[in-house]
Amino acid sequence: MTQNIYDDSTFFDAYGRLERSMHGLDGAPEWPALRALLPDPRGRRVLDLGCGYGWFCRWASENGAARVVGVDVSERMLQRARSDWPADGIEYRRADLEEVDLPHASFDLVYSSLAFHYVARLDDLMARIHAALVPGGRLVFSAEHPIVTASHDPSWVQRLPQPIWPVDHYFDEGPRTTTWLVEGVVKQHRMLGTYFEMLRAAGFTVTHLVDWGPTREQVAARPDWATELERPQFLLMAAVRH
Amino acid sequence: MTQNIYDDSTFFDAYGRLERSMHGLDGAPEWPALRALLPDPRGRRVLDLGCGYGWFCRWASENGAARVVGVDVSERMLQRARSDWPADGIEYRRADLEEVDLPHASFDLVYSSLAFHYVARLDDLMARIHAALVPGGRLVFSAEHPIVTASHDPSWVQRLPQPIWPVDHYFDEGPRTTTWLVEGVVKQHRMLGTYFEMLRAAGFTVTHLVDWGPTREQVAARPDWATELERPQFLLMAAVRH
Repeated sequence: MTQNIYDDSTFFDAYGRLERSMHGLDGAPEWPALRALLPDPRGRRVLDLGCGYGWFCRWASENGAARVVGVDVSERMLQRARSDWPADGIEYRRADLEEVDLPHASFDLVYSSLAFHYVARLDDLMARIHAALVPGGRLVFSAEHPIVTASHDPSWVQRLPQPIWPVDHYFDEGPRTTTWLVEGVVKQHRMLGTYFEMLRAAGFTVTHLVDWGPTREQVAARPDWATELERPQFLLMAAVRH
Repeated sequence: MTQNIYDDSTFFDAYGRLERSMHGLDGAPEWPALRALLPDPRGRRVLDLGCGYGWFCRWASENGAARVVGVDVSERMLQRARSDWPADGIEYRRADLEEVDLPHASFDLVYSSLAFHYVARLDDLMARIHAALVPGGRLVFSAEHPIVTASHDPSWVQRLPQPIWPVDHYFDEGPRTTTWLVEGVVKQHRMLGTYFEMLRAAGFTVTHLVDWGPTREQVAARPDWATELERPQFLLMAAVRH
């Protein structure tokens, strides 16, 4: 069972105050880059793994998806998704991504935003995603970048003329316990080559790989993001099922 | 014109004392991982970009390649390659990788070891490699890892309990002047996503991507390599031409 931080009240309240929680996709600075990797959802059957408040499910539905299924481990987030946006074409299911049973050959697009770095058995999940897609179906996801997750002490190091981001233990894949909104959040570090190889082994061809950081325009509007130009914060990948 | 450090006498002498210079492929700890990405050279027409002393050309020739062409910018290295291993099946050509003219649809395999991070217009070279390969032909290469090339001050930072490798200026692609055997060696930093995108844009499908570092067995035999377990030193990639 994955750690379910989202149903902890302190975490849930802090999460609810994030820009990406309050403003949805437009509050997530990586959304334009991730959207650029997505096929047009029109007429497609879409699965969102780690759907949270359901912002992406709504976007897919509003943009013509034939059917949308959102999966999340947090009942509180799903309750809000259901009450904020009761739409006929969206079904929300509570499930742990480590174990979720997915119907075979039922989706054209699987999407996941910043959830895979919480999944310990991602190779298993990749195999289930592959089976859930039709041939030619697509997987598009974001995750914390391996450069961010590697260190056992992931905090900026002061050095002039600018802070540096530490890389250590890169080859030591596995859990990292960090503080994000609350203490004790467990993430999984895996190498970039491991994300690639898991996809390949599951039967995908990787079509896009993006090291994401904010644009200079975004940083000009949000000077507190300046350090994010030093290291890639997220990894975005797109793949097609054979 | 690429900087030709190899014909500088100080550099050439120091380079000649590296294990990979004296012992060839077996002196390069990443060779087993790179070889695992290679197709069987038997009967194939092989091009080696940045062939140096010609160790890989010899390996391909000894392993049944139909024809081998080695290209390098250093006349001194090519002289040694020609005199150490005069083989009918190997042709050595002096050329700068920034400008080298490659014959169309003439190779089944293009190989390059630790040369691409010296090439400023790698997108151009990728396009020429694509045109030089037959459909279904393969490109296999190694380069310094973007984690290694990013920083403007690429040196280990002491922090307990182990040193950390600095990442900064990751999104600031372009030249980095460093010291390697001699001062003033110019390398090109590019993002991992940029290597991927250049291959995609040139018409390749990436089949393998490996963050390379020494194995724990290699480090046990060479304790001075211990820090190389903290960060990936090389990037290995394989791609197939559409």
